[in-house]
Amino acid sequence: MLIQDKTQDKKEIDWKPIIKEFIAVLGEKGVVQRKEELITYECDGLTSYRQRPALAVLPRTTEQVAAVVKICNRYSIPFIARGSGTGLSGGALPLENSVLIVTSLMRQILKIDLENQRVIVQPGIINSWVTQAVSGAGFYFAPDPSSQIICSIGGNIAENSGGVHCLKYGVTTNHVLGLKIVLPDGSITDIGGQIPEMPGYDLTGVFVGSEGTLGIATEITLKILKTAESICVLLADFTSVEAAAASVSDIVSAGIIPGGMEMMDNISINAVEDVVATNCYPRDAAAILLVELDGLAVEVSANKQKVTDICLKNGARNITAASDLETRLKLWKGRKAAFAAAGHVSPDYYVQDGVIPRTQLPYVLTEIEALSQKYGYKIANVFHAGDGNLHPLILFDNSIPGELEKVEEVGGEILKLCVKVGGSISGEHGIGADKKCYMPDMFSNIDLETMQWVREVFNPQSLANPGKIFPTPRTCGEGAKASSSVQFSSQLSPHIERF
Amino acid sequence: MLIQDKTQDKKEIDWKPIIKEFIAVLGEKGVVQRKEELITYECDGLTSYRQRPALAVLPRTTEQVAAVVKICNRYSIPFIARGSGTGLSGGALPLENSVLIVTSLMRQILKIDLENQRVIVQPGIINSWVTQAVSGAGFYFAPDPSSQIICSIGGNIAENSGGVHCLKYGVTTNHVLGLKIVLPDGSITDIGGQIPEMPGYDLTGVFVGSEGTLGIATEITLKILKTAESICVLLADFTSVEAAAASVSDIVSAGIIPGGMEMMDNISINAVEDVVATNCYPRDAAAILLVELDGLAVEVSANKQKVTDICLKNGARNITAASDLETRLKLWKGRKAAFAAAGHVSPDYYVQDGVIPRTQLPYVLTEIEALSQKYGYKIANVFHAGDGNLHPLILFDNSIPGELEKVEEVGGEILKLCVKVGGSISGEHGIGADKKCYMPDMFSNIDLETMQWVREVFNPQSLANPGKIFPTPRTCGEGAKASSSVQFSSQLSPHIERF
Repeated sequence: MLIQDKTQDKKEIDWKPIIKEFIAVLGEKGVVQRKEELITYECDGLTSYRQRPALAVLPRTTEQVAAVVKICNRYSIPFIARGSGTGLSGGALPLENSVLIVTSLMRQILKIDLENQRVIVQPGIINSWVTQAVSGAGFYFAPDPSSQIICSIGGNIAENSGGVHCLKYGVTTNHVLGLKIVLPDGSITDIGGQIPEMPGYDLTGVFVGSEGTLGIATEITLKILKTAESICVLLADFTSVEAAAASVSDIVSAGIIPGGMEMMDNISINAVEDVVATNCYPRDAAAILLVELDGLAVEVSANKQKVTDICLKNGARNITAASDLETRLKLWKGRKAAFAAAGHVSPDYYVQDGVIPRTQLPYVLTEIEALSQKYGYKIANVFHAGDGNLHPLILFDNSIPGELEKVEEVGGEILKLCVKVGGSISGEHGIGADKKCYMPDMFSNIDLETMQWVREVFNPQSLANPGKIFPTPRTCGEGAKASSSVQFSSQLSPHIERF
Repeated sequence: MLIQDKTQDKKEIDWKPIIKEFIAVLGEKGVVQRKEELITYECDGLTSYRQRPALAVLPRTTEQVAAVVKICNRYSIPFIARGSGTGLSGGALPLENSVLIVTSLMRQILKIDLENQRVIVQPGIINSWVTQAVSGAGFYFAPDPSSQIICSIGGNIAENSGGVHCLKYGVTTNHVLGLKIVLPDGSITDIGGQIPEMPGYDLTGVFVGSEGTLGIATEITLKILKTAESICVLLADFTSVEAAAASVSDIVSAGIIPGGMEMMDNISINAVEDVVATNCYPRDAAAILLVELDGLAVEVSANKQKVTDICLKNGARNITAASDLETRLKLWKGRKAAFAAAGHVSPDYYVQDGVIPRTQLPYVLTEIEALSQKYGYKIANVFHAGDGNLHPLILFDNSIPGELEKVEEVGGEILKLCVKVGGSISGEHGIGADKKCYMPDMFSNIDLETMQWVREVFNPQSLANPGKIFPTPRTCGEGAKASSSVQFSSQLSPHIERF
């Protein structure tokens, strides 16, 4: 049984009447048609794949998003939502004959309810603006991707983004209470609500992390947390990666859950020091560990002692502690700049995102080193050590023909390694266009098909972000570019054959 | 458009060959046929509705569950999974011509992985056994319904159960990482995994809380937590409910998240003292607050002082603190026995379960008191105050004809009140057979229909627990008994009309 993509085999499209309809809804300035202007939108943070869309539109309200989606439906045009375009898996990669719905004019905070610790925002708002809006009153929004000063909340919801503080506080899905969404047919509905647990099936949970395939969130109710009384950042440096990894395990085993616990290896340390010069990270360390402790002052102080003892016992050379904001930011600066720094020390880099059980850290790092040797690429390791979320950065030169394909092969080997030890092919960057071919390494056919039938419920015409998440019959080797073909041909299980 | 229930209009069933097939899979002892024995299974904790099933079967393995479900499919017989039968919304209420799949022989712990803080269990295992199995090593399983010494983990998953510790640690769904499930057609699949965040749609999130309508979980991977270094329970007594409620708000506003924060009113206090005589709860208090603090010793000690100050500032008369296990259990004993105690001081009681934003507590309690006056029933209030999860207990005498219907009306008024202030019709007991008629008060047609189409993906023949969660065309006034009719007739939205 084949499910035909309703958007494929598209003939020439006459865009003129369509553009006219978009302009009627959004005005001239709300519709981007000129090729030069559309270059901005031809890729997201996964820059190795590019495709210019036919149009980009910039709505300001839920009703405008709904009107735009209805026009797309009328003409059977695929549409892709895009926030700030910082996604790393090509989730916002356009198709040729598609409309990009850009949320960068939807940046309002609609409501702040401090008493119930809720904030309602539009999807285009920048992640860090949410914290800025409530920090004066002693609150913050916990999920903090490295891109938080530029990425959008809508994008965070699409990819179920993580960040440094997700070890203790959970990823985006744990901080979203309710959503107003425009469904792929243009109707508007609300899912979830103002309280954490709702009866019925958890549709909010399904929507968060669905990478734009189930609709577009236009009003988002976020949970905000009380700022901790005290925060302390510890920097420990080690002469072996294993010692740093052992410290991570021991800290968690001691019952301490740090606000964040990050690790960087020697290559990353030197890249960062070359580029942003924190002057805090010792260049000869095999690895550093950044541990942020938050809570009551007495609690932070007691945990600081415990973490220090554990790191020293595991052979840490030095431990620097910072409680004041300025020094804390300085200690974090290098970690936050790690991806950008890799871009400075190498012509190109490819960020991988995988998850492993924490206890497999030393084994997996050794295997990644072996892959580095085998393929001849430097691989820098930067990761959320506490939750086993790896970000190996493969350094290469994209101007040499054939290199990207080889690097993708290394990236694929790393993902297979993660799955082998009981982990996952994505921690927080999503599947998007980039990793869909690895989904069968992780999920059975029945899982993938059940997910696709769930998508059919929301998105029966496959107009909302087609060609993402789910593998097409093509193999990985043929590249993972977004394609308008979403047919899937594997044997359907009996329980869904009746459709 | 009508979706016809495939199980309705059933003619006489010849059970003989079916029983023979069940016995071939489970042996004679695994199939319960005698009417006297089946009485056990004619209701769960919602005792006001009863229906004897045709058969009960007791599988021991995933394969046996799958074989049983396949037999049910072959004969188009509805089946209902049942754990310990402690559910309070009639989620395990049988139909006349149905098979009850009872998991009470599936109580094994399949794997304990302390290093990664995971335990894999069968669904029939008792909630508190999980903690017992790992407490020696310093771990525990956080979700703790009042029924934890008897309820099953499978039932907790079906209803997404909460408990005292869910304020700080989240409800069941936050502690389930992966599931082996038998789908409603009898095929076996795995969803989720060993790590917290997986790519693709969150099928584990959809399954947890789906009340047996999407399949049967047969192997469950749970997350366990490290036991806190120090635990302290505070009992504060107040001369007004408002003062206790204000203390709850102030504690949370101060940035303290207690392990648990429970409130009981004067009627509950006296019921408990009459029945279990804790001798700790002052009988003349308008309300008591039980606050459990956990964490590092220094943290608990600092928070203990803060909570004490807040309660005293709000007019608490006395504060008792207990750190040793024995006294802590004594302080909790009354709260854990509150429902049972209501059953001793009144011929019958009806437990309601609703959620409100914490800040609405004083208003809602005043309104419940007004309902108590209006209808002439005593209403005892016992609740998870920290997360706004109310459990009003309406005391009545079921032997008086017409009383149950009136009490259900009061229960319905309370639920509507919860929805009015932005809350929910269920905090942790589920919808089941009992509350499905209130779903339209909370969800739009489009929400309910989307949920039902999701159910169709997993459960297209409607054989898995039909007649639960979703409202039938019948009104609430006609009673909320489980029915084999699951047709829904409201206007389907265009985006799902094509099915």
